[in-house]
Amino acid sequence: MSQPTPLRLGIAGLGTVGIGVVRILRKHAALLEARAGRPVELVAVSARSREKDRGVRLSSYAWEDDPVALARRADVDVYIELMGGEGGAAKASVEAAIGAGKHVVTANKALLAHHGHALATAAEKAGVALRFEAAVAGGIPVIKALTEGLAGNEITRIMGVMNGTCNYILTRMYAADLPYEAVFGEASDLGYLEADPTLDVGGIDAAHKLALLAAIGFGTRVDFAGVEIEGIERISIRDIEHAADLGYRIKLLGVAQLTGRGLEQRMSPCLVPATSPLGQLEGGTNMVVIEGDAVEQVVLSGPGAGEGPTASAVMGDVMDIARGLVLPAFGQPAESLKSAPPARAATPAPYYLRLKLLDRPGALGKVAMALGEAGVSIDRMRQYGHDEATAPVLIVTHKTTRAALDQALEAVARTDVVEGQPVAIRIETV
Amino acid sequence: MSQPTPLRLGIAGLGTVGIGVVRILRKHAALLEARAGRPVELVAVSARSREKDRGVRLSSYAWEDDPVALARRADVDVYIELMGGEGGAAKASVEAAIGAGKHVVTANKALLAHHGHALATAAEKAGVALRFEAAVAGGIPVIKALTEGLAGNEITRIMGVMNGTCNYILTRMYAADLPYEAVFGEASDLGYLEADPTLDVGGIDAAHKLALLAAIGFGTRVDFAGVEIEGIERISIRDIEHAADLGYRIKLLGVAQLTGRGLEQRMSPCLVPATSPLGQLEGGTNMVVIEGDAVEQVVLSGPGAGEGPTASAVMGDVMDIARGLVLPAFGQPAESLKSAPPARAATPAPYYLRLKLLDRPGALGKVAMALGEAGVSIDRMRQYGHDEATAPVLIVTHKTTRAALDQALEAVARTDVVEGQPVAIRIETV
Repeated sequence: MSQPTPLRLGIAGLGTVGIGVVRILRKHAALLEARAGRPVELVAVSARSREKDRGVRLSSYAWEDDPVALARRADVDVYIELMGGEGGAAKASVEAAIGAGKHVVTANKALLAHHGHALATAAEKAGVALRFEAAVAGGIPVIKALTEGLAGNEITRIMGVMNGTCNYILTRMYAADLPYEAVFGEASDLGYLEADPTLDVGGIDAAHKLALLAAIGFGTRVDFAGVEIEGIERISIRDIEHAADLGYRIKLLGVAQLTGRGLEQRMSPCLVPATSPLGQLEGGTNMVVIEGDAVEQVVLSGPGAGEGPTASAVMGDVMDIARGLVLPAFGQPAESLKSAPPARAATPAPYYLRLKLLDRPGALGKVAMALGEAGVSIDRMRQYGHDEATAPVLIVTHKTTRAALDQALEAVARTDVVEGQPVAIRIETV
Repeated sequence: MSQPTPLRLGIAGLGTVGIGVVRILRKHAALLEARAGRPVELVAVSARSREKDRGVRLSSYAWEDDPVALARRADVDVYIELMGGEGGAAKASVEAAIGAGKHVVTANKALLAHHGHALATAAEKAGVALRFEAAVAGGIPVIKALTEGLAGNEITRIMGVMNGTCNYILTRMYAADLPYEAVFGEASDLGYLEADPTLDVGGIDAAHKLALLAAIGFGTRVDFAGVEIEGIERISIRDIEHAADLGYRIKLLGVAQLTGRGLEQRMSPCLVPATSPLGQLEGGTNMVVIEGDAVEQVVLSGPGAGEGPTASAVMGDVMDIARGLVLPAFGQPAESLKSAPPARAATPAPYYLRLKLLDRPGALGKVAMALGEAGVSIDRMRQYGHDEATAPVLIVTHKTTRAALDQALEAVARTDVVEGQPVAIRIETV
């Protein structure tokens, strides 16, 4: 009997995740071969510095200074891009790999969110796989669940908490009763933040992931520019505590829905019920909720980052390729993906409002009337004691659109009984 | 350009799930074709009664009275077995399909748990797929996650709540403060129970599922006989309430671990922390926790039964076949699966104990001493008021093996200060 052909890998980028992949390949060679039906071998690597001690022996692998050269090596079947970055060497080397007929596995959400459609089109034309499970929600096999396990469903909604750092900050603020700035400092000291922290706390990293899941779930062209993004920088500890009093938690929540008006993609702080799986999510764990017309609701959670979990996701993609599975990158041929117009927060929802009411007779009545006349009705209202000139008032509205709410808030501003800008946060039905 | 070849399906069994699959195929024909790159068509069906009104038009499909004949039809590429049952027509028709070179998709956990190894071997020999995502945890794509998404991991533990009826009964007992018998009656009236309810409440149905997940996760031959099974019939509302007082919930929990002493597979009531995802699981939802050496812990939850969710899982398998994915049934070749000896509850754990202590001086001391001398140390103890001749005592032990605990309980029985049999329930670390 002839020996099965090994699958030969080249890895560019030997940071935490790259080294994690190397470790799995060394530790589990026999297991991987049993599962794939063929050996899975690392043949070549590339990184910035050849000398750096990474805690793993790399001398048995060929070294390339240039990732593009690695991507084109004749003895590499799968090019694994773990350098990161929206363009530059990552983009050039992935394009080179596809051009040379190599399969590509990457953890690069920015690259895919910006250039996913072009790369997917090129990969399909070349007949190679372009896989990126590790780009979304760390170790959770969510792209696989969406593309394959739930392939019999029309996907109706995708929600997720997909930035562990933001979730850490928000849960820590609540648990320790600390303001945003203090916990941001802690997270920074702990090394939890990206070099550019606005990628995390500004919601951009999570929005990249949401745009990828939306494209896969709804069969639309990836549209990162169409994601409404709001970070967690302006979330006050007071709102976290008031929300808790009302039975909610505040999460940086991604929501994607394909509506009659277009593709709604939002990454923004939302209130979710404290008792829901999303509400109970603590620390750096990620959670993705997928809703489909047949399956109803599936919830997946797991570590959103880290060497092991991210390497696990990379290896899941590698093993699929080893087993001969080559699907279109977004689950269906790139040319069949629809261009859906972005729909800004079209879906109505209840909102949490916090206003500073001036201590004047009839002030509350004026606010209620202004909201009502603008078509926003009140579900619950809570007024706190007012020793000072203003009293905080919390309002939970009935379902309304963001547009109607904004008009109502303008009307409230005109009443002259409210100080400053009201805080308005969407309450997502989960 | 030539038209892509359609994938032609035959369905045997037109109950809830079968009709659910028919509905998806009719509703989503275009979506499925876009995703699979080829049409996915139902050509023939089989069920007990041709006349029965099932709410779906079936006249456009060929009819077979005999599922074996359906399985062998020349115009069927994939045989979908949804009749159920460990042997009989289900087994005969699946064997016939494999013999005739057809791919097989089934939701039949009993068939796979008992005959999985033989059927997998036959399917691999014939070069066809044998898929059963719908057999485990309803709509959750857990087999796919384990076999493919986490293929880079050595799996270290699998846990799950995989019988929705048992979880419904246990959560309802707690919520409504009702004894087992009353809630069992309710569940029966609501149609939640299998024709033979011991399949549910006796833990057998869930044990079938655990045996399948263990085989896939650990690369072992499916060994249903090796599962230690204990149902929920003897769970008392008092234990549910005492457990809650101590911060736990009682769940029918499946746990599989491959240890140095063999494969440990348990399906039994366990205490889990009330604040853990498993502890918070309510009603008919299923949850599977997968632990791997790289990914750490992934938690998947979703509806464990029902027309839509189960049909979704069947269609996931069908779509994989349509896309050309043919893997060994248990994730690696059947001949490479190890025969691991069953290891009875080898892993140490803390236990919850409830004893009825006679009202005698020094009684509690005697119990504590008997436990201690048998090597079981006490973490927490709680004694309740005793108006009657006996007082309930709750004990949470430190970690111990079941064997050591049983010896300790024998020693406790010899003290003559305890009435009746103590209740002992394992506390699983989750």
